[in-house]
Amino acid sequence: EYFSMTSLACSMLNRTNLISNIIFFLFLYCYTFQKMSLKFKNAKRIEGLDGNVWIEFTKLAADPSVVNLGQGLPDIPPPLYVKEELSKIAAIDSLNQYTRGFGHPPLVKALSCLYEKLYQKQIDPNKEILVTVGAYGSLFSAIQGLIDEGDEVIIIVPFYDCYEPMVKMAGATPVYISLRSKPMDGKKWSSSDWTLDPKELASKFNSKTKAIILNTPHNPIGKVYTKEELQLIADLCIKHDTLCISDEVYEWLVYSGNKHLKIATFPGMWERTITIGSAGKTFSVTGWKLGWSIGPYHLIKHLQTVQQNSLYTCATPLQEALAQAFWTDMKRMDDPECYFNSLPKELEVKRDRMAHLLESVGLKPVVPDGGYFIIADVSLLDADLSDMKNSNEPYDYKFVKWMTKNKKLSAIPVSAFCNKETKLQFEKFVRFCFIKKDSTLDAAEEIIKAWSRQKS
Amino acid sequence: EYFSMTSLACSMLNRTNLISNIIFFLFLYCYTFQKMSLKFKNAKRIEGLDGNVWIEFTKLAADPSVVNLGQGLPDIPPPLYVKEELSKIAAIDSLNQYTRGFGHPPLVKALSCLYEKLYQKQIDPNKEILVTVGAYGSLFSAIQGLIDEGDEVIIIVPFYDCYEPMVKMAGATPVYISLRSKPMDGKKWSSSDWTLDPKELASKFNSKTKAIILNTPHNPIGKVYTKEELQLIADLCIKHDTLCISDEVYEWLVYSGNKHLKIATFPGMWERTITIGSAGKTFSVTGWKLGWSIGPYHLIKHLQTVQQNSLYTCATPLQEALAQAFWTDMKRMDDPECYFNSLPKELEVKRDRMAHLLESVGLKPVVPDGGYFIIADVSLLDADLSDMKNSNEPYDYKFVKWMTKNKKLSAIPVSAFCNKETKLQFEKFVRFCFIKKDSTLDAAEEIIKAWSRQKS
Repeated sequence: EYFSMTSLACSMLNRTNLISNIIFFLFLYCYTFQKMSLKFKNAKRIEGLDGNVWIEFTKLAADPSVVNLGQGLPDIPPPLYVKEELSKIAAIDSLNQYTRGFGHPPLVKALSCLYEKLYQKQIDPNKEILVTVGAYGSLFSAIQGLIDEGDEVIIIVPFYDCYEPMVKMAGATPVYISLRSKPMDGKKWSSSDWTLDPKELASKFNSKTKAIILNTPHNPIGKVYTKEELQLIADLCIKHDTLCISDEVYEWLVYSGNKHLKIATFPGMWERTITIGSAGKTFSVTGWKLGWSIGPYHLIKHLQTVQQNSLYTCATPLQEALAQAFWTDMKRMDDPECYFNSLPKELEVKRDRMAHLLESVGLKPVVPDGGYFIIADVSLLDADLSDMKNSNEPYDYKFVKWMTKNKKLSAIPVSAFCNKETKLQFEKFVRFCFIKKDSTLDAAEEIIKAWSRQKS
Repeated sequence: EYFSMTSLACSMLNRTNLISNIIFFLFLYCYTFQKMSLKFKNAKRIEGLDGNVWIEFTKLAADPSVVNLGQGLPDIPPPLYVKEELSKIAAIDSLNQYTRGFGHPPLVKALSCLYEKLYQKQIDPNKEILVTVGAYGSLFSAIQGLIDEGDEVIIIVPFYDCYEPMVKMAGATPVYISLRSKPMDGKKWSSSDWTLDPKELASKFNSKTKAIILNTPHNPIGKVYTKEELQLIADLCIKHDTLCISDEVYEWLVYSGNKHLKIATFPGMWERTITIGSAGKTFSVTGWKLGWSIGPYHLIKHLQTVQQNSLYTCATPLQEALAQAFWTDMKRMDDPECYFNSLPKELEVKRDRMAHLLESVGLKPVVPDGGYFIIADVSLLDADLSDMKNSNEPYDYKFVKWMTKNKKLSAIPVSAFCNKETKLQFEKFVRFCFIKKDSTLDAAEEIIKAWSRQKS
């Protein structure tokens, strides 16, 4: 309220009539100091960080008649044994009480066993792992624990939307670089066609650069960074003595012909990398809100300090159930039934289905190599957005709102994953989530095909 | 490692030999810049905030032969229906996925219904409530969302230990005031004998004061603030236009003859108060890590902004189970079986038992009016701490370490709830937790009685 009054005041500054201005400011003064104390104002660190795409678009998609391909939220059932573990554990008294602050001992043990195999090195469960409230909590602890006011942090556009406000909340400056697509010449578009320009990337590093945030497999494009691409980033991190915060929550969701690589395993990178994982993405239980950071103790200890001064510990029954789920699948890592193998197989079929569906109605999807999202250029659909208000919004915001309302299909605008300056580059794209039951995808197919018929 | 080298360097400054100093600093330079990058250093905001009493003493009490009256962790079973709700909910697919960021809709609805009765006013479930990762998460969101660098925040000593680092992490200055005890003259000591001096309290407020953190019922003393005491605080908050962060996690745990009052219900206080509650304390499930903040939207919205940029949302299955637990007990608020009534009755017996036990061996307990802790002056036990190392530690730290090791009984030193300058005032006191099974209290009784016999 106070702010809208202030902006009103600013617009009044353009007025020429002195007396009316005086009266107005008198009114503003009374309004501000009688109605609302200045002590009610937010702390500076969160100034301007109150907008959030999930809150806005999740509300929009809450209508039960809408087919929701928006938020990255599986509607396929999580594995039965994962749910059953939680059911059993809920009955055990001691597992409903506090556990160790930096991670429930059975869980950090399970994580260290699993990741030791992937890193080909020993990982100390107590010193080199921190269990957090989702990968979100890991990002926050890493950024608050390591990034200072005045630092620069490189963010690759498009980016998972919380990177930007988290860096700003730490008082640091985000430095952006965009993934750019090769010219397509009518070929099919793949997420691997989107790359960083090596010279442009190098130009973003300087002595103020404290960290780069990497995300592979990438959300929303689905890009799986190659060895060469990661080596380039690693070389720059080492050359400029920069940390790497590597968000690898979709690490298991990689499709045929691709391989997920961990930048922390590149020479010289372990000591400067925090690698972030997620239970929600690994076991399709986003509602458990458990994640973890892995890295050298000289970095992890700072994340631990943030955690002990922000939430102390994570939920015990969920951590215990997650530990049990890991043991189940770690015993059968080479079996096709292992969830780390079966889920990507299941999702690859859904990816192909979505890609064909989008192509069949004349859209240009970017077929992802990993993750569970597919983006597509929707400007070709030629939707009539003339009656959409808020004409200042990017095209994709208007498009998704229009589609949700008129077609009962929801998605997420890709420009939500961009900083202000790059929104135009991506505003023709919309992100669809495909970790959905066949019946949900059937419903989406019906909507899209009917829409296409209507057009022609 | 780097820091221990730095402190070593500082001690070297006292040396008089110039050459040896030069050599040493050369060595330090090489050590620092070759072995450990400066970029690995923590962000300034967490400098010096890495110590934590829970981590230290929980580790100590982990020995299964130790009777643990330390951390506030119930070993009585949580209510059966609470555990059963979670077991049932774990099987429901959709309740294992993300829910609304600021609070699962059924939970904020239940909380608003419950608290509307207690506040005698309407509470908007979506705008005036935020569900957080424990009360800890509420404290953090409130402080990060509302407190700026340079602000002052009044903290009442002794205090729940996280208040101090949280305020410091926000760049603000904690201003301390101690609860002081009346002279006892051989009478029994009650938590109500510990009070704030009104003049001293008034002297702590000034134009920089952004907030006071209140805790009633109080941890560790067990004090339940009276109407008059709260009115004094409210008057000062209003006079100096100050916020009040009221930590009321033990709100239901109040013993005969006392009544918990909410400062937010005092005239003029709703608009400036964040009231914090806890599922862990309300339903004896500390491991669920769910809490909530209630207050006017003009304040809660800033906490929401912190939450959406630090962890986004809390665990869905736990929030749903908690909502169901609240409905169960809200339907029988006047019945003795309602957990809000039965738990304090059960605990009052345990409180009396602990008080008698401590008195019987010549200790002076401060009998609490609320909460589930009892503090006692242990200097009368005359423990022989001569072989304890770390002689710089306060008496109670040494005492608890000695008792845990030699008597196999653990507790928490009360000076852990003090700032550096007031530790001496409280270092004779130790805090025992009594939300424990009879068998645990039996074991504690045996230890204390044998110890007393040994002495005499």
